[in-house]
Amino acid sequence: MSQTKFLLDESDIPTHWYNVVADMPNPPAPALGPDGKPIGPEALMPIFPMSLIEQEVSAERWIPIPEPVREAYRLYRPSPLFRAHRLEAALGTPAKIYYKYEGVSPAGSHKVNTSIPQAYYNQQAGIKRIATETGAGQWGSSMALAGQMFGLEVRVYMVKISYQQKPYRRSMMQTWGAEVFASPSMETNAGRAALAADPNNSGSLGLAISEAVEDAASRADTNYALGSVLNHVLLHQTVIGLEAKKQFEKAGDYPDMIFAPCGGGSNFGGAAFPFFADKAAGKNLRLVAVEPTSCPSLTRGHYAYDFGDTAKLTPLLKMYTLGHDFMPPGIHAGGLRYHGNSALVSQLHHEKLIEALAVPQLATFQAGVAFARAEGIIPAPESSHAIAACIDEALRCKESGEPKTLFFNLSGHGHFDMGSYDRYFAGELEDFAYPEEAIKAALERLPQVA
Amino acid sequence: MSQTKFLLDESDIPTHWYNVVADMPNPPAPALGPDGKPIGPEALMPIFPMSLIEQEVSAERWIPIPEPVREAYRLYRPSPLFRAHRLEAALGTPAKIYYKYEGVSPAGSHKVNTSIPQAYYNQQAGIKRIATETGAGQWGSSMALAGQMFGLEVRVYMVKISYQQKPYRRSMMQTWGAEVFASPSMETNAGRAALAADPNNSGSLGLAISEAVEDAASRADTNYALGSVLNHVLLHQTVIGLEAKKQFEKAGDYPDMIFAPCGGGSNFGGAAFPFFADKAAGKNLRLVAVEPTSCPSLTRGHYAYDFGDTAKLTPLLKMYTLGHDFMPPGIHAGGLRYHGNSALVSQLHHEKLIEALAVPQLATFQAGVAFARAEGIIPAPESSHAIAACIDEALRCKESGEPKTLFFNLSGHGHFDMGSYDRYFAGELEDFAYPEEAIKAALERLPQVA
Repeated sequence: MSQTKFLLDESDIPTHWYNVVADMPNPPAPALGPDGKPIGPEALMPIFPMSLIEQEVSAERWIPIPEPVREAYRLYRPSPLFRAHRLEAALGTPAKIYYKYEGVSPAGSHKVNTSIPQAYYNQQAGIKRIATETGAGQWGSSMALAGQMFGLEVRVYMVKISYQQKPYRRSMMQTWGAEVFASPSMETNAGRAALAADPNNSGSLGLAISEAVEDAASRADTNYALGSVLNHVLLHQTVIGLEAKKQFEKAGDYPDMIFAPCGGGSNFGGAAFPFFADKAAGKNLRLVAVEPTSCPSLTRGHYAYDFGDTAKLTPLLKMYTLGHDFMPPGIHAGGLRYHGNSALVSQLHHEKLIEALAVPQLATFQAGVAFARAEGIIPAPESSHAIAACIDEALRCKESGEPKTLFFNLSGHGHFDMGSYDRYFAGELEDFAYPEEAIKAALERLPQVA
Repeated sequence: MSQTKFLLDESDIPTHWYNVVADMPNPPAPALGPDGKPIGPEALMPIFPMSLIEQEVSAERWIPIPEPVREAYRLYRPSPLFRAHRLEAALGTPAKIYYKYEGVSPAGSHKVNTSIPQAYYNQQAGIKRIATETGAGQWGSSMALAGQMFGLEVRVYMVKISYQQKPYRRSMMQTWGAEVFASPSMETNAGRAALAADPNNSGSLGLAISEAVEDAASRADTNYALGSVLNHVLLHQTVIGLEAKKQFEKAGDYPDMIFAPCGGGSNFGGAAFPFFADKAAGKNLRLVAVEPTSCPSLTRGHYAYDFGDTAKLTPLLKMYTLGHDFMPPGIHAGGLRYHGNSALVSQLHHEKLIEALAVPQLATFQAGVAFARAEGIIPAPESSHAIAACIDEALRCKESGEPKTLFFNLSGHGHFDMGSYDRYFAGELEDFAYPEEAIKAALERLPQVA
């Protein structure tokens, strides 16, 4: 049998991140301030170091990765590319299935790829403390780990429903020395206001972002860090796709279709953008962002300027959105419960250069279990969105007889999600369809931009 | 900075397991039946396939690894050897610290190294179902995974206190299709008797073994599988040390001291035995088995024939034991809560060819947290025993200025042990010293062997 894993040397860890902006047919729509005018760097300086602000607006194709960041990456990178021989056999498909496994990071997901450089640049800028939010806990634990590595204090506002459902993600952050509060908390104006309006508010990513941004903006020693959505975050994640391209070379193969989960967009951007460079150069290749039907920003949202958070503290980004006050249903893929999406992913989708599809919750768990039984690894519910879409395509290949090469990003393991597997087995999970009226209503609440 | 990880190719997965018996100065003490006479293979045939029984008594130095087993190993092997640069820096030690990381297996520990061949040989022998026990859950999940890979049903008797403390280990086994019962259960005579005597019995590894052995012995389609202690289990685990030796060659280094956790002995045997071959050939090298002070079989137990389980269903093994009816305190390193030890490890210890030391619980958590903050990976509490001993030695090197090369087996991650980290941070954990009277009392209850 041919190889199962395609490994790279530490010297193969990319020396540069890939910036998709350089290969986009149109420049990205600018971020706007509350006055509806494009913001300058000064608008972001209270919460981000200048090096990250420069990356946020850069049009350079290649951005060098600082050596201390590559050094820290070496704890878990390069991550393996697997050929899913056992899954192929279980499905009886002629398709070849590959997956990149980012669960090898100590925090268990791809999020560490950006928490490390964010911690590094903040430390270099003399910042002592980071405030951030977390939904499912993957981002918060990644930031806690990176903060520990670069000597920064970390404060995490964790969406309350996750704080309650996933206490072990909290323990993990604390093991790495971070301070964790359930959001909405009494620590910020945004949190106190939300609790005053509804003491039982179980939180949302948008609200937790408001708390963390407020915390960072109110202290000179503190910056904010975001785990997805922003251009520099997607940039950092391109180590995934860049490594994967080298690994496909080793495998003597190349994907026909790429699937990645899509919430804020960094998972998809990280895996797919380096391949987009080939597509922009004429290669025939389909890039598919997979989202939950319960939170269908790309497939059913509005392409419009909107806030990134509930309290309207962030700049306006042009993106697919369900409305900044959207409260997603309590699905178990907490990392995909975001009202908006990356501006870059949104623009590429709007220009029909990438595709998007939505998968219902039960289908994702069904796919996750099938994958775990074939390949051993128990996937995070977020990752199972890509698995479900990939399995569907592999089964279409079985019908058509096409031996397509399929690739998906296995962005994390499900070791902290076993409670949701339990509920799945007990028949307690359900599918959510996002109601049409809610989509219409969101349109009316979008900020008015000239 | 020099390399962080030393990786091998899939072709470097060992082709043979190493049998330490071939290099022991004296033949192993035989297992005895209830009559006090050495048992023949027929005594084990009701619960083990002949291929494993042959391995149990083999004196051959090298035992070939069947190709389907190597194929299955490829899902996660070869495992990485890490140089702990960050831990060294944090300790300020001149020692060089290396660790082999077995937490890369899908079940999160080294246990899969033996569950895979055990499942394979049983499937080859026409067995349809495996009954086994689990303490902390690492073995049970490893057996569940391997059963799924080779098409066997798996029934797991899980020590009740772990079943309650670690529900997500249960979910993991169920995700891989296994059936899990809290032990003592109403499914067996041994379980029913224990519950009749004490309905609140929270279980022990010895009792769960009794249940699984009884289950296997009573059904023709079912065999038993054990996750440690037995010679064939230690044999399978030698893939750890064999790979590590190749990796040390790549690193241009060789350990002065090796540390591994020791409960039933397979963790230690797997990491240390392949190096013992060099020691037997004259190499100067110290091999250190690390156990909990609360369950100190090697450091304070009796070297005598004893049963492997509470209900006295197993043959008698000559080993360091605290008495087969020993009920260990509820420490969080559930995988080390066993009254006895491997006969091979015991004999080597008795002949002073290896060393043993005991570490109290709080020191292991302190070491585990220090390791997690330096190296990122959150260790299983069992693994933290080896870390604690290794850090102590590294600090001695700091005092003496000796640049020793230290190696430990990081046998698993702690993703399913975050509850015990929580309790550690909350100051709720304590140290247990095993009382001297209990050790004396155990002596009187040991079986009488001529």
